[in-house]
Amino acid sequence: MTTLHDCLRLDAQDPLAPLREHFSLPPGVIYLDGNSLGALPRATAARVAEVVTQEWGTDLIKAWNTAGWFDLPQRLGNQIARLIGAQPGEVVATDSTSVNLFKVLTAALHMATADAPQRKVIVSERSNFPTDLYIAESLCRQHGFRLQLVEPEEIAAALTPEVAVLMLTHVNYRTGAMHDMPAVTAVAHAAGALMLWDLAHSAGAVPVDLTGAGADFAVGCGYKYLNGGPGAPAFVWVNPVHADRFWQPLAGWWGHATPFTFTPDYRPAPGVQRYLCGTQPMISLSALECGLDVFTAAATLIPNQTAMDTLRQKSLALTDLFITLVEQRCAGFGLALATPREHAQRGSQVSLSKSEGAYAIVQALIARGVIGDFRAGDGAQHPDILRFGFTPLYVGYEDVWHAVEQLREVLHTAEWQRPEFNTISAVT
Amino acid sequence: MTTLHDCLRLDAQDPLAPLREHFSLPPGVIYLDGNSLGALPRATAARVAEVVTQEWGTDLIKAWNTAGWFDLPQRLGNQIARLIGAQPGEVVATDSTSVNLFKVLTAALHMATADAPQRKVIVSERSNFPTDLYIAESLCRQHGFRLQLVEPEEIAAALTPEVAVLMLTHVNYRTGAMHDMPAVTAVAHAAGALMLWDLAHSAGAVPVDLTGAGADFAVGCGYKYLNGGPGAPAFVWVNPVHADRFWQPLAGWWGHATPFTFTPDYRPAPGVQRYLCGTQPMISLSALECGLDVFTAAATLIPNQTAMDTLRQKSLALTDLFITLVEQRCAGFGLALATPREHAQRGSQVSLSKSEGAYAIVQALIARGVIGDFRAGDGAQHPDILRFGFTPLYVGYEDVWHAVEQLREVLHTAEWQRPEFNTISAVT
Repeated sequence: MTTLHDCLRLDAQDPLAPLREHFSLPPGVIYLDGNSLGALPRATAARVAEVVTQEWGTDLIKAWNTAGWFDLPQRLGNQIARLIGAQPGEVVATDSTSVNLFKVLTAALHMATADAPQRKVIVSERSNFPTDLYIAESLCRQHGFRLQLVEPEEIAAALTPEVAVLMLTHVNYRTGAMHDMPAVTAVAHAAGALMLWDLAHSAGAVPVDLTGAGADFAVGCGYKYLNGGPGAPAFVWVNPVHADRFWQPLAGWWGHATPFTFTPDYRPAPGVQRYLCGTQPMISLSALECGLDVFTAAATLIPNQTAMDTLRQKSLALTDLFITLVEQRCAGFGLALATPREHAQRGSQVSLSKSEGAYAIVQALIARGVIGDFRAGDGAQHPDILRFGFTPLYVGYEDVWHAVEQLREVLHTAEWQRPEFNTISAVT
Repeated sequence: MTTLHDCLRLDAQDPLAPLREHFSLPPGVIYLDGNSLGALPRATAARVAEVVTQEWGTDLIKAWNTAGWFDLPQRLGNQIARLIGAQPGEVVATDSTSVNLFKVLTAALHMATADAPQRKVIVSERSNFPTDLYIAESLCRQHGFRLQLVEPEEIAAALTPEVAVLMLTHVNYRTGAMHDMPAVTAVAHAAGALMLWDLAHSAGAVPVDLTGAGADFAVGCGYKYLNGGPGAPAFVWVNPVHADRFWQPLAGWWGHATPFTFTPDYRPAPGVQRYLCGTQPMISLSALECGLDVFTAAATLIPNQTAMDTLRQKSLALTDLFITLVEQRCAGFGLALATPREHAQRGSQVSLSKSEGAYAIVQALIARGVIGDFRAGDGAQHPDILRFGFTPLYVGYEDVWHAVEQLREVLHTAEWQRPEFNTISAVT
């Protein structure tokens, strides 16, 4: 049996333990919801204050040049590129994940049908993140495409000659199940489809190699594992072989080849810069830089390893430990593991399903300072889920121990059945 | 002749003078570029720090409920509605102006052609803000429409039965010329076209009455006269008679009727909420609230007047004074007034054209602490422009005097011909 002592020993031996000091977390809280909203880096408050009082307040309009605002989407994109197997100049940080998905999905449909007009289907997973499906549905309505939703095991069979694009989220937001990116991308390409990945639950969470996989397009989120702050701008990657092939529909001034000539005709910038559109929220964008800087610090901790390889080892150790402790200490209460046990199929979260009381258990845990979240199921195929994200940047092994202890007490005492934990309020 | 003493007396009598204390401006600077990037409200730094350290850092994911993040686009939209003649619930603050324009222009084209399939033309002004034209051009490419660009005096004649949408910026970004919104809207409607207004240089600058004019769609900017901070989220208004008629193409989770049920099918929220898409940058969005709060303070200064009526009187007095002083004190240097002299046709800026040296004069003024900006012309029809924005919230009459005095000295001494003022760098 694993003991608290074991956990303390793991923390003492953890080369990444110093990264915890890069974050400001409230005392008494074990934060296992970084997959929904990442924690606050210690550097962010001062940086944001500098942007507000110095860059905006004092430099005013000059800050576009003096503070480097104009290049910020590319600078942040280059930092993100290192985490997702992309090259400098291939990624920009901008807009929201949904808006970026609209850009690349439109581009993908345009390119696919330019090469093969009969390809009029987008394939995705039924349990993909809903906003991705909404964007795809909207594009289908507008352009006469069809969105076909399948279960993960049905993907390969669904890739008929009518499929233009396979659009998947790399790590499933509910279960934490991770696709084999190179293998799935190869299957899509073998079927003549383009491959679009949503990295919302991957970037900063698991190693990603878009170049190695030969993917076509990717989008991802700035405010989950990248710790960019609430609603931080998202990012978009386009394989350089495609970048110059299409305008992208949201053709705004920031994507223009010469944005300061104010010409009435649009001429797209080369490369991924054309995937920029309007003016970006500089305060929020600057906060994202502080989140990304922590990964630069992480890359220095273990010689000859990338930040993500270093973080991945601890992430798997944390999720393994959580699974082990739940099975050792919380057995008999109807919890089932919804996340794959195999490392190669697991993101940086663990989801537990429970047929009754999942929402209330999460509320009772939050009242005890263990913050995870709840995702409703749809009955049989997708049960209610208790979701726990493990961010190796700021979660330790002792945290895992105490989280499971609190879960055990909530279950043993039946505390979750109290009325105050069963009042549904808006949750995110 | 107008004197400095006259200006000091106007400041002493100005009921809006206390509003200057709501802003933090660097000492020694006369800021006449609020039409490009509004100044920093004093309340913003503390508010942003609260969002970062308390809402994000301490409340973490709970802040979606406890800090009211989810309702913020609507709350800010309701504050903006008061400035543009819209009703509560008709405006949301979100995304960028370009992205919002894409949403409403797509909706407008859809609605226009649903009623009359032969309407395949968008009419706009040749000197409209370029990003608006780029977005329109992109939609035309994608959907087989045609963008027809005309001069202001050619608009009425261009409204043939093939025109789906007339898309105009209310106040021209170069010249400060203002359209007669009710009259132009009526002309568009008489021709069977929908009317879309960009209020980037109007909202917070001049009184706007979208409802009274019977306009169909509007977008606008958060970081110019609304003082929301660099790249602050923009806003979008949809006439309630149209709001439920179309999905809008950027159909993301925040525009869903029940965003927290995570259903795979998109069902649009009623009203303007469906014009929301992805998660918004909360730090930047919160900063915008501080800019809007100053207008609430302005509304209390003169009984029985709206904030915008109060501000308009001073705005016209400031721009009148600037024009008068330039003509009295800077004559003989080839400056020409590019902004209409008639109040009804003037926004809250004054543009001066000059065939030679406009860029260098602006640089020399900036070196002297008078911040305006430069917009290049295209030769004959649109000459180079020196642009001066007058924000009655924080610009006073004495400021106007000193700005013109600095301009006079730059011209009289030929200081602008120095090499350091003639080196072109990136400008915005």
